[in-house]
Amino acid sequence: MSQHFLNIGTRLFYDDLKLQNQKVTQVNWAPLAGGDKALIEAIDGLSHDERVKAANEKAVNIVLSGHPYLIDMGLAKDMIEGYHDNLILHAGPPITWDRMCGPMQGAIIGALLFEKKANSVEEAKALASSGKIEFAPAHHYNAVGPMAGVISASMPVHVVLNKPYGNKAYCTVNEGLGKVLRFGAYDESVIHRLNWIKEELLPVMKAAIFMYDEGIDLKSLIAQALQMGDECHNRNKAATSLFFKEVVPSILKTPFKHDQIERVIRFIQTNDHYFLNLSMPATKSIMEAAHGIPYSTLVTTMARNGVDFGLRVSGSGVKSWFVAPANFVEGLLFAGYSDEDANLDLGDSTITETCGIGGFAMGASPAITQFVGGNVDDAMNYTHSMFNITMRENTSFALPALNFMGTPTGIDVVKVVKRNVLPIINTGIAHKEAGVGQIGAGVVTPPMACFNQALLASYQQLKEKSHG
Amino acid sequence: MSQHFLNIGTRLFYDDLKLQNQKVTQVNWAPLAGGDKALIEAIDGLSHDERVKAANEKAVNIVLSGHPYLIDMGLAKDMIEGYHDNLILHAGPPITWDRMCGPMQGAIIGALLFEKKANSVEEAKALASSGKIEFAPAHHYNAVGPMAGVISASMPVHVVLNKPYGNKAYCTVNEGLGKVLRFGAYDESVIHRLNWIKEELLPVMKAAIFMYDEGIDLKSLIAQALQMGDECHNRNKAATSLFFKEVVPSILKTPFKHDQIERVIRFIQTNDHYFLNLSMPATKSIMEAAHGIPYSTLVTTMARNGVDFGLRVSGSGVKSWFVAPANFVEGLLFAGYSDEDANLDLGDSTITETCGIGGFAMGASPAITQFVGGNVDDAMNYTHSMFNITMRENTSFALPALNFMGTPTGIDVVKVVKRNVLPIINTGIAHKEAGVGQIGAGVVTPPMACFNQALLASYQQLKEKSHG
Repeated sequence: MSQHFLNIGTRLFYDDLKLQNQKVTQVNWAPLAGGDKALIEAIDGLSHDERVKAANEKAVNIVLSGHPYLIDMGLAKDMIEGYHDNLILHAGPPITWDRMCGPMQGAIIGALLFEKKANSVEEAKALASSGKIEFAPAHHYNAVGPMAGVISASMPVHVVLNKPYGNKAYCTVNEGLGKVLRFGAYDESVIHRLNWIKEELLPVMKAAIFMYDEGIDLKSLIAQALQMGDECHNRNKAATSLFFKEVVPSILKTPFKHDQIERVIRFIQTNDHYFLNLSMPATKSIMEAAHGIPYSTLVTTMARNGVDFGLRVSGSGVKSWFVAPANFVEGLLFAGYSDEDANLDLGDSTITETCGIGGFAMGASPAITQFVGGNVDDAMNYTHSMFNITMRENTSFALPALNFMGTPTGIDVVKVVKRNVLPIINTGIAHKEAGVGQIGAGVVTPPMACFNQALLASYQQLKEKSHG
Repeated sequence: MSQHFLNIGTRLFYDDLKLQNQKVTQVNWAPLAGGDKALIEAIDGLSHDERVKAANEKAVNIVLSGHPYLIDMGLAKDMIEGYHDNLILHAGPPITWDRMCGPMQGAIIGALLFEKKANSVEEAKALASSGKIEFAPAHHYNAVGPMAGVISASMPVHVVLNKPYGNKAYCTVNEGLGKVLRFGAYDESVIHRLNWIKEELLPVMKAAIFMYDEGIDLKSLIAQALQMGDECHNRNKAATSLFFKEVVPSILKTPFKHDQIERVIRFIQTNDHYFLNLSMPATKSIMEAAHGIPYSTLVTTMARNGVDFGLRVSGSGVKSWFVAPANFVEGLLFAGYSDEDANLDLGDSTITETCGIGGFAMGASPAITQFVGGNVDDAMNYTHSMFNITMRENTSFALPALNFMGTPTGIDVVKVVKRNVLPIINTGIAHKEAGVGQIGAGVVTPPMACFNQALLASYQQLKEKSHG
């Protein structure tokens, strides 16, 4: 006689039956919001409020109709509003120097050396801890950066315009792999490369971009790349190729010397992650336009500083972060490294998932599983499951392998807590010591605590406004 | 009460029940080889012969281990052995001028004008029908050409080396879309473009290719493109991008003038089909190495001249073609055209399917269905079903969406007839009049008659050798 068990709730019995080689199917079930009365009341209150519904509809439509173009490049201090010489931006939510992780401290040391504000590592450390340098999340300046995400005054940034809404977003140039600032490296080769990007690459690329009347259409490049196996967070191979093919003829028309042009083209050509630093400001510009809509429970920012994970919600004000300790990333480590070497979840790059690509579009990118772990079914399932927590399907981003279904877009704080499903993020793993570089890649989620806080705050605002 | 019918064999009853809105499932069944005794005997004889098994094992291993590199370019008469000034090559099996389809006659007129052997269309027609021009299948010279596939003495060709086996294959440069020679156009713009390819593009590309010690690795580019949504017959978007990214830095190192380099780069950049004329000689070089193995029933050539479909089998000698009338291509026509405008199946490009990509790799390329018709499931099913008629899985060409399964490779004539499953070819559709161009794309199969003939001939040879 064949028996088949159905286990509902705690996995304890499931695991035990499996050990006994029994057929058993697990039905995941947990009490709503862990049975927490305040959370249940907030879910109920927010789910049935017409103002919230209308605000979310407005917010997600802004996201779906966003259309980013690369329109310019320049130094951070010249391009980003409100920049000053002693300002250094970093990834994730606010954090003080003493609490920063290794890669972020290393990147800041590198930035101070690059800016010639310090002549040695010791001087840089002393300056960084002196209080004379202002640290702020890149997100506070409409900027984003992968990994440590450090931006200083003289670093070149891409300028991306979200044309239908007129807002801009900024991101540095991707340095490639190995010893690079974003992983906290600050030796001579790193500073030399940053200077080269500023002196040689910046003028050529700026001139090339200026040849386009409208800028370079990043939404179109992302849409095509999603049809070519990229998810535009950890796989940008197709997008980089398409961007390269798009921009090379314009680069050739710039008035610079042939050998300089050659070096710039070779730099882009040899870095399959070049487009990451364009997909990030593209998605940032899209999400930023949907920020600040009263009552909306749309997640507009997810970001990590390597210590804390931070969340921002459209209706909760510009600088309100909901913060909890960052998670450990499960994934594939490069040979020679172990879990102990890994920094916690780090970087602004999860702005891609916030906008419905990256981990949310893994169904477009089965090949990414060879890099972040898991199999093709997992990749498909990640995309399907994200519809549980998002507001809409983005038909501009169609995934061929999923019958041209659009990407799940617009994370709703209420749905995340109600359904107990966390956003899927795929991400690189940094070594916890400054400057070692990437040691692997994997899949991670934000801590649920961020969403619980955001939910309660959203409900609190709703109640205050209703009574006020 | 719910009834569900099962219909086996003829679809007549199935269609009738469907009309009556009944639930009915069709089971396709036909007697083995249509009940033809000679075919059944041949299937039986060839299937159980150890020499055939060993020969096929040898042949398919040559295919799987083939490794094509782009090593050179030059004029056809300088690169292709045995070329002479009055030789014009064409797609498909042998055919005489008077039987050729419109696009092929048009392309030959264009070639004669390009070669300055005629000064007008009338002169060209007179010369073509005079018997002074020798026409031969490109395949007889290890060459291939898309659509009309016309090659004349002064046309530049790619030279592809199948390194492990030392054999070479040749193909012209893709001219782009619209009015182009391969669709039979021969006006001034066509001749001008051919001259430009010869005068400006050829020297630059030849010099760029020479910068590679080993040539440009086409197997690696195809393998990557298959992971990026191409099937490398009708979709070459990723492959062209990857080729472009690979070759541009080398082009920039050539000693030619900046504006000439710019024009060459722009020409490749604006033609998403550029790589087709590289995937074709790449797969041709792979298949040619496996041709001429006694007893092998491996299909080494499938090709169409727009009137006839031709097949060649490894064990059946260099010039033995098995020929039957070409099929009509079912597919999607561009706006303004109807079935009556369509030429029959045309071109050498189905060398890609012969080598296990193209239609056989449609599971890699769900996006191709938007071009050739059908849906994503169809694309997956095509790839799965081709395992019924092929000898092996080519693990060098892994398809992410199918869990990194390799492509079905090495068509066995015996399996095709025995299982009554024809190879799937996806293909462009040419207007039947010379010079109009592409009017659509679709899916087609070869006529079964070619396979029946090849099967009987293979069995005849086996019997003769057994008795001789």
